[in-house]
Amino acid sequence: MNLRLPQGFRAAGVYSGVKRSESKLDLSLVVSDRPAVAAGVYTKNLVCAAPVKLDRERTPSDSIRVVAINSGCANACTGDQGDADARQMAAWAADAVGAQAEQALIMSTGVIGAMMPMEKIRAGIQAAAKQLGDDEQSLDNAARGIMTTDTVPKLRGREVTIGGIPTRITGMAKGAAMIGPNMATMLSLVMTDACLRKQDAQAALVDAVDESFHCISVDGHMSTNDTVILIANGAASAYVDESLRDSHSRLGETRPLEGKGLEDFRTTLFEVCEDLAQSIPADGEGATHLITVEVHGCRSRQDALKIGKTIADSPLVKTAIAGADPNWGRVVSAAGYAGVQFNPSKVTLYLNGLLLYERGAPVDFDAEAVSKSIAADRDTSIVLILEEGKAAARFWTTDLTAEYVRLNADYHT
Amino acid sequence: MNLRLPQGFRAAGVYSGVKRSESKLDLSLVVSDRPAVAAGVYTKNLVCAAPVKLDRERTPSDSIRVVAINSGCANACTGDQGDADARQMAAWAADAVGAQAEQALIMSTGVIGAMMPMEKIRAGIQAAAKQLGDDEQSLDNAARGIMTTDTVPKLRGREVTIGGIPTRITGMAKGAAMIGPNMATMLSLVMTDACLRKQDAQAALVDAVDESFHCISVDGHMSTNDTVILIANGAASAYVDESLRDSHSRLGETRPLEGKGLEDFRTTLFEVCEDLAQSIPADGEGATHLITVEVHGCRSRQDALKIGKTIADSPLVKTAIAGADPNWGRVVSAAGYAGVQFNPSKVTLYLNGLLLYERGAPVDFDAEAVSKSIAADRDTSIVLILEEGKAAARFWTTDLTAEYVRLNADYHT
Repeated sequence: MNLRLPQGFRAAGVYSGVKRSESKLDLSLVVSDRPAVAAGVYTKNLVCAAPVKLDRERTPSDSIRVVAINSGCANACTGDQGDADARQMAAWAADAVGAQAEQALIMSTGVIGAMMPMEKIRAGIQAAAKQLGDDEQSLDNAARGIMTTDTVPKLRGREVTIGGIPTRITGMAKGAAMIGPNMATMLSLVMTDACLRKQDAQAALVDAVDESFHCISVDGHMSTNDTVILIANGAASAYVDESLRDSHSRLGETRPLEGKGLEDFRTTLFEVCEDLAQSIPADGEGATHLITVEVHGCRSRQDALKIGKTIADSPLVKTAIAGADPNWGRVVSAAGYAGVQFNPSKVTLYLNGLLLYERGAPVDFDAEAVSKSIAADRDTSIVLILEEGKAAARFWTTDLTAEYVRLNADYHT
Repeated sequence: MNLRLPQGFRAAGVYSGVKRSESKLDLSLVVSDRPAVAAGVYTKNLVCAAPVKLDRERTPSDSIRVVAINSGCANACTGDQGDADARQMAAWAADAVGAQAEQALIMSTGVIGAMMPMEKIRAGIQAAAKQLGDDEQSLDNAARGIMTTDTVPKLRGREVTIGGIPTRITGMAKGAAMIGPNMATMLSLVMTDACLRKQDAQAALVDAVDESFHCISVDGHMSTNDTVILIANGAASAYVDESLRDSHSRLGETRPLEGKGLEDFRTTLFEVCEDLAQSIPADGEGATHLITVEVHGCRSRQDALKIGKTIADSPLVKTAIAGADPNWGRVVSAAGYAGVQFNPSKVTLYLNGLLLYERGAPVDFDAEAVSKSIAADRDTSIVLILEEGKAAARFWTTDLTAEYVRLNADYHT
């Protein structure tokens, strides 16, 4: 792995005992050596977890020092006690790295409705604080500490020159994979040493998430804990400006990105978020295919997204891909109930680049060849073209396999 | 089976060759000996099948004589040729029973995107017309001729006295069960010998469907062919009025139901539709549980329905029930993303009558006992109570099993 933490960040992942299996890390810390700008995007679920409430209050911020993340317990549906536990967890994390209580953010994923095992959390935070490092192993451990049923840690990033300054954007994510009592939760933390104003960070994250994390689905069940946080500490500029290199206290003198520099940052942030987002359905529970649904020719991006999501969430479409069945009728009919007005006699469909349905009528195609192309490749492309306008959108999902059902049915609370 | 056809109806079901297996009936005719009032409710899918377009034009009507239904081919996404085939099929059905072309309605279910095998349809209609009968076996055959992957024919009905007249309401349905190239299609035909005005029939059907067929879901994928038709021939009144008994030509003298009689009819129609609707998820593909989701305490019925449908469509809820896992977090969080505003700290949940979650906080419960109660009974009850208002709704669905995925993934086009 070539991915590195951005300048001025350290990370750790440890086993705290929240999860039952000692072979699995379950608590991660990410620390910025200086106060950092932080932006957040959260679940729209009315029933949201205590950590989401806490982070929502604290972002956007320009003074975050630490993010603590645990897996194994979601601290969701836990009432007032859960809110108090979230504040306590944040306070311990801040304390462990010598920051103020309100300089911490937290995320949790795992069992819903269970109270946080606070003693384990405290000990885990203290252990993690002692293991903080800026090496690749520390980053990898942090990415592993947030996993639930993910089969691989999800780390993506870029090293680019932005505004003349070598800059890193490094993100970790965990997937919408769920087992037994666990919730489908998507968490992501994106770190950068770029220097940003907090309002710019928030706007950049909202836009990037809108076309990445908001365009994926494993089973359409929105979690109580979904969170994406961007943390930007400006250390890249400090590093370049020799006079600031070892003087964290003078961080205020680094100049926030603006104009083209900010645009370049936004573009790269979007790329990283897109990579992270795709990694989630690619590792969906029991999934054998990553399905990319593209919808073109819509009146608005909103329309295109609605159709894309409806196709992506249809169990009939997902089982057809699992079975390598070029069952275009399921795709076309899913589009028809998406709640978007369009002329059904001007719909065209490609599957893995092969034309199956053209302007409202079936096309003679080699079903065997299409089936083989689905079976041969983990990536499946569905392209639906309307003739209503010029807007388009992409959506990513998994197929639906018997293994998914087994994973979600056969584990007991 | 005690169910009988209403007075003045005859039915038949034959094997026409549209389906591959000769052991399965695939074409049904239902004939009214006199012109009947007919009302229809159809799929809201923009991509709708040719028979849906034809019936939608012809209902409400007061001159329908015959309904022809085939399984094995949906005549959906078939372009102009499909529309012409639908008209031809209706014309043949009318001709076979000595009616005018426009006195026929048709329904189709089965493979989408395939052209209708018209020679088989013609021969099948002619064969069915010769076998028409008013006995139980004929009714049973008709119910079997519309099945796709249903494991049992679905017939429900009532014999009641309405407005002083012994009246029958007898309905057949096929399920939203789908395999391979077939679509998830729900078809139902409800016959009655009550005498109704066409506008009253249409209003009664719309209302009954709204609280029955519109409240079921197997996988949330709306078909191109969904159709419910009510056909009312007034023969019950004719039968009672001795002077009209053998004089079909004087049907005009029977009096349409109104006032309390009409109300009684509506109530019974709703009961029959509710029975038929429940029979569909009860026989869902691979299903091991019929799940009834009740949502109470909402501001509007619309809100309650939205929440009920969101819970019913969640694969996480459905797999939890399949696995007998009392995973209440999945239910509560599904409610949270239904798009309805409510106070999450005033949510209470019962599963099979046992309290799991009370006013926003988990309750100590015997998970083993709840799990056993789910495993022991095919019927599962989920009751969610909000404190926003007094509206409520019920929704029915199935659990999601590995067998469902196998059925829908392992069959190839």
